[in-house]
Amino acid sequence: MSTLRTALLQSSGRPGDVSHNLEVLEGAARRAAASGADVLVSSELFLTGYAIGERLHDLAEPADGPSARAVARIAAEHGIAVLYGYPERAGEHVYNTAQLFGPDGERLAGYRKTHLYGDFEREWFTPGELPVVQAELGGLRIGVMICYDVEFPEEVRAHALAGTDLLLVPTAQLHPYEFVAESVVPVRAFESQLYIAYVNRVGPEGDFTFVGLSCLAGPDGVVRVRAGGAEELVYADADADVLKESRALNPYLADRRPELYGTLADRA
Amino acid sequence: MSTLRTALLQSSGRPGDVSHNLEVLEGAARRAAASGADVLVSSELFLTGYAIGERLHDLAEPADGPSARAVARIAAEHGIAVLYGYPERAGEHVYNTAQLFGPDGERLAGYRKTHLYGDFEREWFTPGELPVVQAELGGLRIGVMICYDVEFPEEVRAHALAGTDLLLVPTAQLHPYEFVAESVVPVRAFESQLYIAYVNRVGPEGDFTFVGLSCLAGPDGVVRVRAGGAEELVYADADADVLKESRALNPYLADRRPELYGTLADRA
Repeated sequence: MSTLRTALLQSSGRPGDVSHNLEVLEGAARRAAASGADVLVSSELFLTGYAIGERLHDLAEPADGPSARAVARIAAEHGIAVLYGYPERAGEHVYNTAQLFGPDGERLAGYRKTHLYGDFEREWFTPGELPVVQAELGGLRIGVMICYDVEFPEEVRAHALAGTDLLLVPTAQLHPYEFVAESVVPVRAFESQLYIAYVNRVGPEGDFTFVGLSCLAGPDGVVRVRAGGAEELVYADADADVLKESRALNPYLADRRPELYGTLADRA
Repeated sequence: MSTLRTALLQSSGRPGDVSHNLEVLEGAARRAAASGADVLVSSELFLTGYAIGERLHDLAEPADGPSARAVARIAAEHGIAVLYGYPERAGEHVYNTAQLFGPDGERLAGYRKTHLYGDFEREWFTPGELPVVQAELGGLRIGVMICYDVEFPEEVRAHALAGTDLLLVPTAQLHPYEFVAESVVPVRAFESQLYIAYVNRVGPEGDFTFVGLSCLAGPDGVVRVRAGGAEELVYADADADVLKESRALNPYLADRRPELYGTLADRA
């Protein structure tokens, strides 16, 4: 199989209501599987909500907690991989994490956000220390990152160098930074020659307003699907043959001059 | 002075005709100075033409050759800095170079293209080894790169880390890669929080067709001026206050995690 169909669940669920959000996730998994999707991607912190302050800590769960088991069951029951965002409890730390279960309910990956955004996230989360987390799915190499991470070309490039074909990026992207969803994401896909599925929250929540505009962009910089400003479930395909052809036409990885890039890894 | 006005000379001149192209450059310098511009930027290899094969070697000159002295005189006579592209002869090597003279005719910088594009450039040029070349002009720190260089986020980031405020980028950008001029350049300006003046050739030349679409993009990702698909001289300002405000709103440089970016500088 050389084509992977991604379902992008642009939804904020109901902030603070985990059981409701698991129901929304299950409903989306059912519809997505019926539409032939191989993987369902939800937004940043979809399980619990984003702008819920200290409840992010109250609702945090370990990577194998009850909600993780519920998502594994949803994935297995509908035969579709599922990526969801949640606050991960690990000892004294709480991470902003995205976890991926495969279509048989097996845990494939857990990624802890490495670039925390603003004072809000720095108050509630510990930053992750592992920039590249990957899994194999349907013949493609999947990578996971979260929101602000994708705004750093270094982070996407590290994935490209590690062979990522399709980046799954749950996000909580704010007004007035529509430029990120509209322009930065397609350029990232082009410059590093991979697919990016960018899945946002939408509408007002606490002090924030999320812009929607979820998209799947290809290695040619073309946006394959774009959601609007309301709750939506949209689909697009990632194709291994398109990747191969685009990488031959745009040999950015081969034409890099890493011996000139030393300052990028210098610690301040 | 906190504002620098850039004149973007979107022109291919007359390929192979150095004396004609120096006349075009002088005419543009006169008009640009009269419009209050502080610096005139011409396209990649403007002095000689781009698609002229072995004549690139016949017409190559040292950095202080007769054409350099002519450009220095033009700059001084009109009181405007001038950046021009030319094939630079240095011993056995020929580089694809952009050289900057200040408004008093003093040489401020010479940059040798580090990322050569395709078989054509690799046949005729030696790649440069110095990624960041800068000069001070009108209270801003100017950086210079050429065409394909700007498509590498690493190269622009290295400039941002070195304090570049305004990147001057002569280019020879081809159809069907309009996406680079239209989307990649504004995203580079946004992600690294600097201005970019991207100045293209235009129309058919040998086996190539250049797309024009020269632009000056700001640190907010907004394109301040955009040329069409014909010869044009257009203007836009770079403002130190806009830079300061934008960098406070978008602290990408401060929020980087260089300790996680080691693979970017690994040699294959």
